[in-house]
Amino acid sequence: MAQAAGVSRQTVSNVLNAPERVSKDLQEAVLKAIKETGYRPSSMARSLALQRTGLVAFRVGDGMRNEASLLDPFMREVARIGAHYDYRLVLDAVPSDDSAQIASYQDLTASRSVDAVIIVETHLDDLRARWLTDNNVPFVAFGRPWGEESAKHSWVDVDSRLGIRQAVEYLHGKGHYRIGYIGSPVDGGRHEDRRGGWCEAMKEVVPESVSEDLTCLSFESRRRDLGANIDAFLESASPTAVVCQDDQFAHEAMRSATRVGLTPGENFAVVGFDDSMVARRAQPAISSVAQPLTQAATLVWKALLPQIRGGQEKPLQTLIPPELVIRESSDFELKR
Amino acid sequence: MAQAAGVSRQTVSNVLNAPERVSKDLQEAVLKAIKETGYRPSSMARSLALQRTGLVAFRVGDGMRNEASLLDPFMREVARIGAHYDYRLVLDAVPSDDSAQIASYQDLTASRSVDAVIIVETHLDDLRARWLTDNNVPFVAFGRPWGEESAKHSWVDVDSRLGIRQAVEYLHGKGHYRIGYIGSPVDGGRHEDRRGGWCEAMKEVVPESVSEDLTCLSFESRRRDLGANIDAFLESASPTAVVCQDDQFAHEAMRSATRVGLTPGENFAVVGFDDSMVARRAQPAISSVAQPLTQAATLVWKALLPQIRGGQEKPLQTLIPPELVIRESSDFELKR
Repeated sequence: MAQAAGVSRQTVSNVLNAPERVSKDLQEAVLKAIKETGYRPSSMARSLALQRTGLVAFRVGDGMRNEASLLDPFMREVARIGAHYDYRLVLDAVPSDDSAQIASYQDLTASRSVDAVIIVETHLDDLRARWLTDNNVPFVAFGRPWGEESAKHSWVDVDSRLGIRQAVEYLHGKGHYRIGYIGSPVDGGRHEDRRGGWCEAMKEVVPESVSEDLTCLSFESRRRDLGANIDAFLESASPTAVVCQDDQFAHEAMRSATRVGLTPGENFAVVGFDDSMVARRAQPAISSVAQPLTQAATLVWKALLPQIRGGQEKPLQTLIPPELVIRESSDFELKR
Repeated sequence: MAQAAGVSRQTVSNVLNAPERVSKDLQEAVLKAIKETGYRPSSMARSLALQRTGLVAFRVGDGMRNEASLLDPFMREVARIGAHYDYRLVLDAVPSDDSAQIASYQDLTASRSVDAVIIVETHLDDLRARWLTDNNVPFVAFGRPWGEESAKHSWVDVDSRLGIRQAVEYLHGKGHYRIGYIGSPVDGGRHEDRRGGWCEAMKEVVPESVSEDLTCLSFESRRRDLGANIDAFLESASPTAVVCQDDQFAHEAMRSATRVGLTPGENFAVVGFDDSMVARRAQPAISSVAQPLTQAATLVWKALLPQIRGGQEKPLQTLIPPELVIRESSDFELKR
């Protein structure tokens, strides 16, 4: 231990954590002693001195299976990039409702167990961001503050509207103009944003759709009896292509299309969202709008670290452009 | 704060962490003061007093996509159950090789950042368990100590051999006797165990296979050019059913079967392993051997907590029986 070299623990702590308080000569002597003895301060003692833990809370759901969601790969990417800054994620296993999460943040911050919090799946009337802001907890949201455009906290999100527009433009270029949309009922948040993106793109990009009642080309479902309902939608609205809120809807759409006599990838095009395994493993493989998770995870740390260090920088608020990945489900010219 | 009630921080700490050192009256006075003032000790100060962090390390891979693996749901389940004991997982984002993981454990334990470690994906010549044992780090392995049956550490694993046997028995009951196996090359670990389970079950359960050269009915691949190779295997070995090392192999087998003119679920049966989304979403849905992750996660904590508390209990070493989930891919009687 460094103490063996005649240096007190407090001096070691000062050299490591507050070098400005220590003379240059003493600094060098201590660093030399540390090197010689392999001294390694306890993370707990160091945390107490620095008032930092090197830990950031990240909620995990209590559902056993979450495979279709992007949250697991996003979490792994945030963990991987955090390691470059000597930060680790602490998994916070709490239910998905805001109040349960806030109770947990209250506990974690009051006991100073973490330096910051990452929230995901933001939604309308999200109480978490407000609580964290009011309590001066360093945090960043993966997901914009739906319905509160003036919110002052840091957030990172993917520009889904742009991704959906890319899909509509691409399908129009392949000869489609009856391009439908399939997704969840509007929620004032990300579901509505994706559907809105489709509606806007149809009006601006697809001149043939001007005379069309777009509501006929849009299908919404809470995922109950999805299959049969999509069958009926495809038969009544007769789209030649559909853009879907996520890959699971896209997968269902492809099955429905086959049931009603269409051939996905030949006379019926499907585009999903998230570029998940569901899209990649389907047959034919499904084109999908990919969320750039590495970029998102990088920005999450860029927003968090200055807050943890106590800087008064401007909040980081960024929309990242997604990227359309084209696969067999849509890669053909529509014959009229 | 409790101090305002005339009680020193040291006394508070004694009452919370070492009540046996404090008189009954003082205990009551302190607990009353705590209740009145909302005092909450810093987790760092408490950790320092208890020499415990409430944190357990769990490695996450640096691959962006890991969706077919069971590790993400297992990790979430371990986190969920750990919360009941006031324990949280810390994600350790390091490469998969043993030496990188050991370096990280060295760092985490030397700095006393975690109380224990959970290792997953055990393999032959696994250096991690040895290092953790030699360094007296509380740990448990999800995965048995392949090739080291005398190892003294705690581990929890799923009895894959039994699961494969259940699949063979089930298929034999449906009229199959040419039951093939598809998996990775033998590794002296879990891949070999599954293939061995199939071989053993064929000899013991399927009398018709006695005269058969079982190597002909077994196909191994490193997943390069998998599809075409399985096509050739199905055509040359003509199994009427296959049991597969995991659901991805099963999914490939089903595609191959369709290409060579068989109809999975009607005249060709497929059984996978892991009961993952790949199996559940395939068409037809694939029968699969399910790993009981909740039970495994519960046992992981049962093995860890006494070690953390310093008890000298016997190591917990348990094989959990898996469960065959039957779906359309195999749910028919074979007509001869």
